[in-house]
Amino acid sequence: MPGATAGAATGRRPGTGPYLDEVTGAGGTHTPVWFMRQAGRSLPEYKKVRGSSSMLEACFDPAMTCEITLQPVRRHGVDAAIFFSDIVIPLAAAGVDIDIVPGVGPVVAEPIRDEAGIAAFPELTPDRLGQIEEAVRLIIGELDPSVALIGFAGAPFTLASYLIEGGPSRNHEHTKSLMYSRPDLWNDLMSKIADLTTVFLRAQVGAGVDAVQLFDSWAGALTQRDYRSLVLPHSTRIFADELVSSVPRTHFGVGTGELLGAMGEAGPEVVGVDWRIPLDAAATRVPGKVLQGNLDPAMLFADRSALDAEVTRIVEEGRRAREAGARGHVFNLGHGVLPSTDATVVTHVVELVHELTANG
Amino acid sequence: MPGATAGAATGRRPGTGPYLDEVTGAGGTHTPVWFMRQAGRSLPEYKKVRGSSSMLEACFDPAMTCEITLQPVRRHGVDAAIFFSDIVIPLAAAGVDIDIVPGVGPVVAEPIRDEAGIAAFPELTPDRLGQIEEAVRLIIGELDPSVALIGFAGAPFTLASYLIEGGPSRNHEHTKSLMYSRPDLWNDLMSKIADLTTVFLRAQVGAGVDAVQLFDSWAGALTQRDYRSLVLPHSTRIFADELVSSVPRTHFGVGTGELLGAMGEAGPEVVGVDWRIPLDAAATRVPGKVLQGNLDPAMLFADRSALDAEVTRIVEEGRRAREAGARGHVFNLGHGVLPSTDATVVTHVVELVHELTANG
Repeated sequence: MPGATAGAATGRRPGTGPYLDEVTGAGGTHTPVWFMRQAGRSLPEYKKVRGSSSMLEACFDPAMTCEITLQPVRRHGVDAAIFFSDIVIPLAAAGVDIDIVPGVGPVVAEPIRDEAGIAAFPELTPDRLGQIEEAVRLIIGELDPSVALIGFAGAPFTLASYLIEGGPSRNHEHTKSLMYSRPDLWNDLMSKIADLTTVFLRAQVGAGVDAVQLFDSWAGALTQRDYRSLVLPHSTRIFADELVSSVPRTHFGVGTGELLGAMGEAGPEVVGVDWRIPLDAAATRVPGKVLQGNLDPAMLFADRSALDAEVTRIVEEGRRAREAGARGHVFNLGHGVLPSTDATVVTHVVELVHELTANG
Repeated sequence: MPGATAGAATGRRPGTGPYLDEVTGAGGTHTPVWFMRQAGRSLPEYKKVRGSSSMLEACFDPAMTCEITLQPVRRHGVDAAIFFSDIVIPLAAAGVDIDIVPGVGPVVAEPIRDEAGIAAFPELTPDRLGQIEEAVRLIIGELDPSVALIGFAGAPFTLASYLIEGGPSRNHEHTKSLMYSRPDLWNDLMSKIADLTTVFLRAQVGAGVDAVQLFDSWAGALTQRDYRSLVLPHSTRIFADELVSSVPRTHFGVGTGELLGAMGEAGPEVVGVDWRIPLDAAATRVPGKVLQGNLDPAMLFADRSALDAEVTRIVEEGRRAREAGARGHVFNLGHGVLPSTDATVVTHVVELVHELTANG
């Protein structure tokens, strides 16, 4: 049983606001909208507040994390804030020697590729997450009660790939080599990562986030067969934690058209869908879930009439998805906001989604 | 009507050898096997023959192209040679200022993003492809008649992305922006690229390749809806060329599980499938085609027993795919051989596939 924050109050405003109404099935005044990576690189005010501090510094500075998390809420009027963090933060908190290198991504000093490396993988104890909990409390203190705060963590497969490859990887060959050659060691490592992720999410839920999202950025590199046998059990265990499961949970990956059903079985109420899979098709692959998505982030670079037509089409597709068995629709991108995105376009999409779905 | 090589003899050994037997539906002595990127970076003898010459120099040097193409046939005993080239070669031949930068990929000096750039896009005339034709003739002169020579070209969407982004791109935002905002300009550019690709493939077929493969590396970034309306018509026109369609044709893309049916409609006899889609599932998505695939290239890094089990599983799945309506199975990877692959493992897979499928 990881963590020791049980007993803390969970969720500060249960069932209030368009986001929580939609994901709990209560239905709301309009389709809620937020964007993955809405906080961060696309906002001039983000660059200003970050200044010369590193990404790791920003993520362990409660006041800065709070400010960055709130910026897109103020600017865009989104229905949810996503806790500003990085998927490697729990690794750094546990003491893994890891850096986030601008233009590269996370770099692990000593990649883990054998039994000794896995045995030495550190445990994350809740006392290491004081700044994370403090940041959540600061955000809640400032956030409009109708806007949900979504907690954030990377899923075990994606974290394992960073740890084993030593950094971002296109082909995940060392990761898959360990997975296929030594499933016993693989499961040991994944189990430890799942514990760490659970502690990280418990800290956020314990401090008051209203919901959580588990990102498995790279699960789409796997076959459904391997995902089911070697990844799904670990992600399922995270979602099943008593504290984590006390709030609405979202699971998301990119290029996961073949995996949607399996990812839904991990336990989340909401499943993220990228732009490759129409929402109404997704509704039949992962029945009974709220679907989140799925505007192509590249669409934010198209001209206004093409963008508006696509947003309108997705809203309609969300309605058809409901008819096909989905429990709801949270408008989002099919992946994160790209760094060079014009922030005024993002605001426009929020307004358009609200307008198109008002009172329905 | 692009090109002017009509009338040249096409295909030197029609219907002979395991590869051609399989893809023409005649059935052969065993399941044929070859590997995308079998020629090149994974072979020590390749590094030796390349020496200090650039990739562009190697691709326009008939003797070197011939030697590099033949190396994996000699070493691995594969059933097909793939003409050694690069998807940007027809662009370079037409006069586009492009370089292949080691560790980066193709870099275009002046990205094409507007009407003037598209208007200035050069035509590829067959007289620019003398070295390509000469290389094909040299290969045919040396290649065992039972081994097929497969010609090679990149598909219009992938080439368009290089031209518009200026190099490799993860999100294709400029490409998609043009596609969505100015479909008229997009179709002009795609039409010109399709002409160029057709000329490049006609030169190879005219010089005697036995088959062709059109690689759309990045089509998997598109929705099926956009693929059908803005990409498929251009790829279809290439496959429909009289000379190109005189040999068996393969179409391949990565992460194209949602697109397989549409890619099959482009006209090929063979459709490549990556490891994310089981071959028997692919058989129902793109019925009546020969399927090519689909070992994960990362699997070549796993230990021998895990690898052998996976190869055996795919051979079995290929049999089930036939029962589910596929016209045949060509064993291949689901993407190219990774540069750090141990070449002896590749040879082992060829032997295993031949052994597992002998007389059946």
